[in-house]
Amino acid sequence: MNRAALFEQIKKKSSYLCVGLDTDIQKIPKHLLDLEDPIFEFNKQIIDATAKYAVAYKPNIAFYEAHGIEGWKSLQKTIDYIPKDIFTIADAKRGDIGNTSKMYARAFFEQMDCDSITVAPYMGEDSVKPFLDFDNKWVILLALTSNAGGKDFQNLGLNKGGELYEEVLRKSQEWGDTDQLMYVVGATRAEALQNIRNIVPDHFLLVPGVGAQGGSLEEVSKYGMNNHCGLLVNSSRGIIYADNSADFAAVAGQKAEELQAQMAGFLDKYL
Amino acid sequence: MNRAALFEQIKKKSSYLCVGLDTDIQKIPKHLLDLEDPIFEFNKQIIDATAKYAVAYKPNIAFYEAHGIEGWKSLQKTIDYIPKDIFTIADAKRGDIGNTSKMYARAFFEQMDCDSITVAPYMGEDSVKPFLDFDNKWVILLALTSNAGGKDFQNLGLNKGGELYEEVLRKSQEWGDTDQLMYVVGATRAEALQNIRNIVPDHFLLVPGVGAQGGSLEEVSKYGMNNHCGLLVNSSRGIIYADNSADFAAVAGQKAEELQAQMAGFLDKYL
Repeated sequence: MNRAALFEQIKKKSSYLCVGLDTDIQKIPKHLLDLEDPIFEFNKQIIDATAKYAVAYKPNIAFYEAHGIEGWKSLQKTIDYIPKDIFTIADAKRGDIGNTSKMYARAFFEQMDCDSITVAPYMGEDSVKPFLDFDNKWVILLALTSNAGGKDFQNLGLNKGGELYEEVLRKSQEWGDTDQLMYVVGATRAEALQNIRNIVPDHFLLVPGVGAQGGSLEEVSKYGMNNHCGLLVNSSRGIIYADNSADFAAVAGQKAEELQAQMAGFLDKYL
Repeated sequence: MNRAALFEQIKKKSSYLCVGLDTDIQKIPKHLLDLEDPIFEFNKQIIDATAKYAVAYKPNIAFYEAHGIEGWKSLQKTIDYIPKDIFTIADAKRGDIGNTSKMYARAFFEQMDCDSITVAPYMGEDSVKPFLDFDNKWVILLALTSNAGGKDFQNLGLNKGGELYEEVLRKSQEWGDTDQLMYVVGATRAEALQNIRNIVPDHFLLVPGVGAQGGSLEEVSKYGMNNHCGLLVNSSRGIIYADNSADFAAVAGQKAEELQAQMAGFLDKYL
């Protein structure tokens, strides 16, 4: 899916909601555990209930890998089940030397047919570029993350000026264009969004951290939106674990609808 | 495996060789392709031929993930096949927010029972610590990598002094001790090893880049060795793809033996 098609979906649904599929066998409703593939069954019901309100799904790969081969089966079925007009993000935080990143790209772009993958920047250009060689596929590069440890290195001041995350934003723009490259920017850092928009005015930003991690959707929308919307705001736990009963999917749908309604308002106000 | 046990193995075998299992279906001998699981069959024969000379094996996870579910099966079988007195490294370059890193730790320490995993530092303390909560398991943190792009960020000069990779080495020592934490230091940067040994005198270093990537084993050994050896030097392509005929395993064994013999000399000279 290219940038124009993604923007079309956003306008059509009046939403820039990404639903995070951090599906944890210990947190899903107990009645699912008797089924053959509880993780996929949970995801299927979540997707059915939220697809009207979401423009993206983001399976968190760790939660599937933790179950080994069975987890990969659940992941593959989940990716295959997501409607094709919804953007898919393999939240994998990969990145390695060139020949190895190429293999990760094959895993998530060919084996899995995801639209995008999250990538860590520490190893630099040749660790990121192999992912950019695939048509209509995206790299979502970590820039400023929402966790406490994000400050350990990302905010270090550099001799050349600015902080490390700003250098990641600047340097990586040489590697791919706005149709291939997005950035992860945590919503708990809304004060940094204005600054980030000065450096990457046209790129899409994937913003986790709204909800459970405490970020404000209004601030993110106010400071982060550009003329193509330019935002995918993720909510995981706040949607998928909103309820733990047999009604979990319906409640997840309500939570997604609430966020979508807020987003519709912010699109009117800030787009 | 703890540090003392690893050092015992090194002394016993007079070797600090790690064999990288970057097993690529397009590069393995053609006669294996008719077998049910060519990747595992290749690894099995490589392990049989090199286990006398190696103290560690490092499967590069990307090469298995690229084959989806079948690849995970080959990986699981490979890990299970490696003799228990040989250190296993899941070369996975993972790292994410705390609850997610915990899931990756489960994948590689519980599902797979690897001794260690390579981790990327960009997301800081809470992305690394969950891996350190497992007894007798190791984090091998990226510090200074051997690829060209490593310079993009790792060598940036910081306002507080030093370069980014030095801050990664300094800061991360607060998170775990020398029995839990190693560092990746590329062999193409031997000139930096003296400096690195000033910052982390006692930690083990995993050194890729000898051989195909051009690093010198003697320089690495001279500048990198400490009184527990403190080095695991990896060779992947130089061993596993040294020959492409029916004799590939025997040739791989010879290549491993050659490296082991050199290492025995350097242990005499520098330990």
